[in-house]
Amino acid sequence: MNPHTSVTLQNERAKANFSSDDMMRFMVGNEIINNRNRALEIIRANPELFDQTDIYYLHRTDKLEKALKQEAYLQGLRRQGKITAQDIVEVLDILDWTTPFALTRIMFIPTLEQQCNEEQREVFLKPALDYRIVGCYAQTEVGHGSNIRALETTATFIEETDEFEINSPTLTSTKWWIGSLGITSTHACVMAQLYVKGKHIGLFPIIVPLRSMVDHKPLPGVNVGDIGPKLGFNTMDNGFLNFDKVRVPRFNLLQKYINISRDGTITRPNNIDTRVTYGTMVYVRATIARGMGFQLSKALTIAIRYTSTRRQFGSDIDRPETPVLDYPIVQYRLIPLLAKAFAMIGMSHEFFAQYENTVKRIENGDFSTLKEMHAVSCGLKRWTSDTAVYGIDTCRHACGGHGFSMFSGMNEFFGDMYQNLIVEGDNYMIAKQTASYLVKSAQSIKTSEQIESNDTTNMINKYLNSNPSSSQGDMFSWSQKSAADIASSHDTLLDLLGYRFVNIVNDLTVKIYGNKQTWEESSVANQAIATSHSEYIVCLYFKRHLDKLYNSSTFNPNIKPILDILFKITALSFLTKSSADLFGFSDKASMTFSQIKGLEAEYIKYIKFARVQAVPLVDSIGISDEKLNSSLGRYDGYVYEDYVKRAMREPVNAEDNIIRDKFYKEYIGPVLKSKQ
Amino acid sequence: MNPHTSVTLQNERAKANFSSDDMMRFMVGNEIINNRNRALEIIRANPELFDQTDIYYLHRTDKLEKALKQEAYLQGLRRQGKITAQDIVEVLDILDWTTPFALTRIMFIPTLEQQCNEEQREVFLKPALDYRIVGCYAQTEVGHGSNIRALETTATFIEETDEFEINSPTLTSTKWWIGSLGITSTHACVMAQLYVKGKHIGLFPIIVPLRSMVDHKPLPGVNVGDIGPKLGFNTMDNGFLNFDKVRVPRFNLLQKYINISRDGTITRPNNIDTRVTYGTMVYVRATIARGMGFQLSKALTIAIRYTSTRRQFGSDIDRPETPVLDYPIVQYRLIPLLAKAFAMIGMSHEFFAQYENTVKRIENGDFSTLKEMHAVSCGLKRWTSDTAVYGIDTCRHACGGHGFSMFSGMNEFFGDMYQNLIVEGDNYMIAKQTASYLVKSAQSIKTSEQIESNDTTNMINKYLNSNPSSSQGDMFSWSQKSAADIASSHDTLLDLLGYRFVNIVNDLTVKIYGNKQTWEESSVANQAIATSHSEYIVCLYFKRHLDKLYNSSTFNPNIKPILDILFKITALSFLTKSSADLFGFSDKASMTFSQIKGLEAEYIKYIKFARVQAVPLVDSIGISDEKLNSSLGRYDGYVYEDYVKRAMREPVNAEDNIIRDKFYKEYIGPVLKSKQ
Repeated sequence: MNPHTSVTLQNERAKANFSSDDMMRFMVGNEIINNRNRALEIIRANPELFDQTDIYYLHRTDKLEKALKQEAYLQGLRRQGKITAQDIVEVLDILDWTTPFALTRIMFIPTLEQQCNEEQREVFLKPALDYRIVGCYAQTEVGHGSNIRALETTATFIEETDEFEINSPTLTSTKWWIGSLGITSTHACVMAQLYVKGKHIGLFPIIVPLRSMVDHKPLPGVNVGDIGPKLGFNTMDNGFLNFDKVRVPRFNLLQKYINISRDGTITRPNNIDTRVTYGTMVYVRATIARGMGFQLSKALTIAIRYTSTRRQFGSDIDRPETPVLDYPIVQYRLIPLLAKAFAMIGMSHEFFAQYENTVKRIENGDFSTLKEMHAVSCGLKRWTSDTAVYGIDTCRHACGGHGFSMFSGMNEFFGDMYQNLIVEGDNYMIAKQTASYLVKSAQSIKTSEQIESNDTTNMINKYLNSNPSSSQGDMFSWSQKSAADIASSHDTLLDLLGYRFVNIVNDLTVKIYGNKQTWEESSVANQAIATSHSEYIVCLYFKRHLDKLYNSSTFNPNIKPILDILFKITALSFLTKSSADLFGFSDKASMTFSQIKGLEAEYIKYIKFARVQAVPLVDSIGISDEKLNSSLGRYDGYVYEDYVKRAMREPVNAEDNIIRDKFYKEYIGPVLKSKQ
Repeated sequence: MNPHTSVTLQNERAKANFSSDDMMRFMVGNEIINNRNRALEIIRANPELFDQTDIYYLHRTDKLEKALKQEAYLQGLRRQGKITAQDIVEVLDILDWTTPFALTRIMFIPTLEQQCNEEQREVFLKPALDYRIVGCYAQTEVGHGSNIRALETTATFIEETDEFEINSPTLTSTKWWIGSLGITSTHACVMAQLYVKGKHIGLFPIIVPLRSMVDHKPLPGVNVGDIGPKLGFNTMDNGFLNFDKVRVPRFNLLQKYINISRDGTITRPNNIDTRVTYGTMVYVRATIARGMGFQLSKALTIAIRYTSTRRQFGSDIDRPETPVLDYPIVQYRLIPLLAKAFAMIGMSHEFFAQYENTVKRIENGDFSTLKEMHAVSCGLKRWTSDTAVYGIDTCRHACGGHGFSMFSGMNEFFGDMYQNLIVEGDNYMIAKQTASYLVKSAQSIKTSEQIESNDTTNMINKYLNSNPSSSQGDMFSWSQKSAADIASSHDTLLDLLGYRFVNIVNDLTVKIYGNKQTWEESSVANQAIATSHSEYIVCLYFKRHLDKLYNSSTFNPNIKPILDILFKITALSFLTKSSADLFGFSDKASMTFSQIKGLEAEYIKYIKFARVQAVPLVDSIGISDEKLNSSLGRYDGYVYEDYVKRAMREPVNAEDNIIRDKFYKEYIGPVLKSKQ
């Protein structure tokens, strides 16, 4: 007797009131769809090498070997011209892990591209691009993280020999966490405190060879190794590194921002605007934000497919049990996350468009959009990673006990994703970047200073300018409206989200500029400000993406109604979660008790609508079974068959098992049969 | 040059304004202190066997072996009369993991104790108590969890042979998640649907032999194995089990609640009140609740010691960086958790006292306190596990990047703790148990029905009885008071917490009894109700424990001021977190904007006070280095020395390393040097 799960999933798909293919083209976009398909072809052409179903049983050492083997094979294809460097990235994205070569791609090569002069490009970048050398970016030290000014590693100019001497003066100066360092890198780009003629110049990157190009053994004075097991990311060889007075040629200092001459004279090119580097940070954060949308979609694909097929309890004892996703408390946890995953992916199109606009302006010497882009990107990195990591956790918990099994696909994955809360600026610290831009902008507007016009300042201007340009009805568009009317208007929802962030920004602005509260004392307030600003931006950008449906004949209009509902759920989840904010609106902005409570009822109503489309919605993000690597989330719905099959492969279950025999002979048997 | 961390930790301890030893006696209690000390002696007498520092590098199979080896050794000591069965539990609590024998202790033996008749005690219980047989409790099936009525395994009475035939009719009927089953158990207590003479009798426990007592091989018709790797708890051999028409004697049906005669006549003893089993559930949940307090304390010990010594940024570039715990945003995340850990441990003394009172009454046939105890125990299991699991996560994140390393001690541990959200009633489902008691009680009080008097109904009565006994000033004790006055009174804080839960209970009562809303539609509301009721009970019980300080000369009064502050922080964290509730108070209960905002300011103020005592506070819970198993949390503060030492033991770092050589020869070298 087979379980019903596969049929149930087909029935869920039959309820779709839109085309999943059309939805995928609009939400994911043809470029990503094509890249993914090409990568899937590479994977499916070598199913044994790329089979990831065994990873849950592997020791870390064996995982490292598996990843290295895949990388070596892919590099072979690349050298044969069969695939591109980008294809390698796409393949690993689907395999959903990394290899020990990743940081040479992500950090070493980009740093060389940005900071080498022409001669250095030839010596370092060219071999790096062909993986003749592989490198890492060695900045963080075991005692020093975010505060890079406190880094202790030194690079001292030795005029006699025309070299730099790289040294690690203390235990805490040991480089730590450096990806691709532990077993792989031949070179490191070391961030060191530069000293020239006894004078401290600042922190600069220097290329230091680490391992012999003959036998890969560490070079003299280089103490290097792997930092050991981690919560996740265990196929990455994060490493440690310290130097006992290691010498490198003066040439190895990357020379884009600084130049040391033979006699130790320092020059800095004056045509460089260091603000350009902010552009790179914006790009990295936009990439994280989009990635978080896809990774959250992975967890949702598993949880929504599984809770649609898993049944439990029911109204009638003689009938089949009720699908778990039919329970309001399960919908309430999963459907808003589904809406947010769509919002993340949708808004990322606009985020990249804004980024590209900023880059184009910078190339023309116009930095006017950079500050807001920086504030937005910090906020969105923070909001998307927080929402995705804890969203994955919610999905895992919604799968009940089976979420705890590695075969759910939720756990290896959770560990890998967790680092996104911390990298590229810890989420609690990075909030200040957003909040300080907002507070400064608010103060400028309140004191009628000239300020650049953008999405953020326009909203602040709307509510804080003492000479409002719009009439009151336009400003407080929720006034006098029923909750149903508020919830059905994208613009009113955006006004509410906008006013909500402006209101708390204004509170902090008064405290900082009026009461001289310090920024340090404001770190708690910063969190709420960064979050509420991001929630506004997410909805604004998502809406801009949705607006393309109205102005184009490219997309099938049947995808509009459900996207409209997902927008509303996203906005309402933000508004209802912190209803204390809404209660705090005063005077002309104030909301009534019945408006606030009514929004909660609208929220629940839209969640029920979206539940019916949940399976086709996750299908339309197109996360392949290879990436899911999950019994619970399989596309075909054969949940329990796959689950049992995976359990049978647990090493201690093997036939003629020497492990189990040993356990019995040495430990279990003696307990049962001891003569004593 | 050594890092300062050890000295810094000593300086933190010097700030203590109370005695850690006195605090430990009051909070932890002499019984637990003595048990722990005895267990530590056992551990320290065999440091090699009990060294847990290597577990982070081990494959699951090796972890299983290590745990089995420890169990076999401990059983040997027990048989020699050197230690007791309870000592084994205490030792494993400090080692902070489990062995594959755990479920025979936790579930198999207790079930036999409760449900065997005299003859069965001799045959099953006696050998189980001496570990001559080891067993498991086989209830959950792969397709069926909480809804036990849907379990599919059958036990059919075969009159011809006087046997039961145990059968697994479907894939989904496979027993799953059963602890101690995968490699260890000789017997299972199988929960099966009993059929006698073609009639379905119900779900009953039957003892089924699984493995040969000669060679431990599975018996004919028994298909058994391990379910594979999990997020945590990997030294437990959770297993699967199905039966192909396996016969056992009629005798093996546990006969406390049912009796089947030779001819299939069913009798049920009529002197049994099944409500007694609720008492056991209360005890199990009280044990979980107290355990959660200690486990959260473990994470806090690590995070608070580490953030006291870790430094980052600072006001002045020429001075040492600022300890991370001095940053308000770090205090704001850790100190309320510290207060809650103290509240959990403190309140558990009262919780057990209430439980014992209930048991004593039941023994005298008085079931009047059982319903509230059941509701309270569900709520506290839910609240403590949720607070502890996500509290551990907060502690991990507060350690920054190093929290991601296994050597933080936070990650193996998080995985092990996570299951507490799901076992003994999933936290989202169990909320209904609490909410339905509250709503029914509220309805009884509103309709002037007779109802038992207890902590919960007294508070509902205070605010919902139409003939209030107390004057209004007493009832709404926060009215007209400043925030500072409210925050400084334990009783006023309790009134606020009490009114807050009664208020939302009343809302749901009106919907259910007035508007005929179903319980299913109420599952979202149940969550808030269960949480706010638990928050009231936690503070009430914690206060009762603190009151012992006032009525006793046993305890040193120097521990009072800081405990008073921890109580206030706990209460204020509950009140300020959901200030929308406070805004929602109406009429005579209403709070002003300045009261609500003022409570937030008081909260921050008390957090700052408690920060100074944070290190001595975690010291006074007395979590040993053996249990911490953490570089970051070491008592002596040698954080970085220990961290580096552990990294050096990572297998790929070994000298003359065949793994690393292989990686280079087969994968890394070919990429670097390929001729193509």
